[in-house]
Amino acid sequence: MNRTVFFVSESTGITAETLGHSLLTQFDSVDFEQVYMPYINTDLRAKALTQRLQEAADRDGARPIVFATMLNEEIRDIIKSGNCFYMELFEVFVGPLSKELGVPPSMKSGRSHAITKPSFYTKRIEAINFAMANDDGIRPDNFHRADVVLTGVSRSGKTPTCLYLAMHYGLRSANYPITEEDFERGDVPQLLYDCKDKLFALTIDPQRLQLIREERRPGSPYASLKRCQDDIRVAQQMFKRLQVPTLNTTTQSIEEISSQIIKALKERQEGRPLELTEMGGAAGR
Amino acid sequence: MNRTVFFVSESTGITAETLGHSLLTQFDSVDFEQVYMPYINTDLRAKALTQRLQEAADRDGARPIVFATMLNEEIRDIIKSGNCFYMELFEVFVGPLSKELGVPPSMKSGRSHAITKPSFYTKRIEAINFAMANDDGIRPDNFHRADVVLTGVSRSGKTPTCLYLAMHYGLRSANYPITEEDFERGDVPQLLYDCKDKLFALTIDPQRLQLIREERRPGSPYASLKRCQDDIRVAQQMFKRLQVPTLNTTTQSIEEISSQIIKALKERQEGRPLELTEMGGAAGR
Repeated sequence: MNRTVFFVSESTGITAETLGHSLLTQFDSVDFEQVYMPYINTDLRAKALTQRLQEAADRDGARPIVFATMLNEEIRDIIKSGNCFYMELFEVFVGPLSKELGVPPSMKSGRSHAITKPSFYTKRIEAINFAMANDDGIRPDNFHRADVVLTGVSRSGKTPTCLYLAMHYGLRSANYPITEEDFERGDVPQLLYDCKDKLFALTIDPQRLQLIREERRPGSPYASLKRCQDDIRVAQQMFKRLQVPTLNTTTQSIEEISSQIIKALKERQEGRPLELTEMGGAAGR
Repeated sequence: MNRTVFFVSESTGITAETLGHSLLTQFDSVDFEQVYMPYINTDLRAKALTQRLQEAADRDGARPIVFATMLNEEIRDIIKSGNCFYMELFEVFVGPLSKELGVPPSMKSGRSHAITKPSFYTKRIEAINFAMANDDGIRPDNFHRADVVLTGVSRSGKTPTCLYLAMHYGLRSANYPITEEDFERGDVPQLLYDCKDKLFALTIDPQRLQLIREERRPGSPYASLKRCQDDIRVAQQMFKRLQVPTLNTTTQSIEEISSQIIKALKERQEGRPLELTEMGGAAGR
């Protein structure tokens, strides 16, 4: 079965898309074609959209689904009048929330991904710059300035995770790749022991690592399965000695890993550290 | 007025947080303290959470707000029994959607930020690596491999925007900083004219640029207001000659800019290019 889904918003559409995607994961037997429609903020654009809704309905033989966050009722009504199954994600909650808070809603649109808190926005941008400047262990002398430090073998997912932590949580993130030198010595440098309170290790299944490395340096000893297995085995021993929580990037997305790191950091701050095994356990669900 | 808000989920909590944040922007007279509670996936954790809800209620003198995406009814009921105003963001839509699609929901949790589509996930990770390797005009010979190219003066926001486009949309993003050499020649190199179909320019207000550069190189000629004004004025002339859409990063977040770039790229692909002025207009709302 094929159905077209439109994510519609007066501004970026990120909220409609995020909740819409979550809802779609509940129906994995349906094949959804997804259309992204931000900045539908004039009557003209809304009317053009209804035309596209009709085209999708004709093509699929079923009306398209619309996930929308529209505050302007006039524009909303134009879209609703189109041939679609319209789900307003915002409206249903604003009323009850307003009653609970005892404050009327502002009804201003497009504030949720705008720069509403300049200080946090600046912090995020600075964190991205920090992550760029402290990628791949370029400057381990900077680790004392970092909020979080990731370690792991080459290509285990440290860089994308650092960038995600910086971009979404404003965390200054650095990473240290386990190098040839560390493997020869059989241990990581002291500086990682020194930042244990903010250190996390990433690991990955050898088969997956091999695929990634093979793409990068085809046919090299670096990409052989044996080398990947050895690297990961020795790295695991190092992490055990470090007593650092280990997260597996084979099965978990950067969003999931980041979310677990944030949780663990907060619990450490509150003096309630996670058991080491718990992180993997949570991910298993 | 101070109210505590909990974002609660069985998995990452990203959906609860995104929609919850959107809703909170409607009530900017209230001072919200935000607590992030992912991986509430056992009875034990839910019970510990109800204790924190009570602590918040005692502290604020008003029950906390809970934004939740919980599929497990047993765990949900434990949280609901706590002293809180509970808003289930997910449940209300799953039923109607299921009816429309004629398919029962899977009721599996935590799929929306997991690696459900390995090919798109791999594309995102590869795009991040591409953005890292093609930052700051390091390899303009790679522009033909890029999906999008950004240009602008130094510190106008190219790098964070490229990383966002890569991370969220899986776009291979490169950027070209307008250099001293370009300013002397009074034009950008031919290679930017060659990739006009995927090129966007970023600009920034001179006062804001001065602040950013001053932080980077305090007291330098590079950070003087005069230099910032000159750089931006000449860059604007170049963008005009290039006939490339220009986005202002002073007032717009990387989310907003990325969203507009995505929209413009799609409209170009569909042969319906945006008017150049339209991008700024949409952002002004």
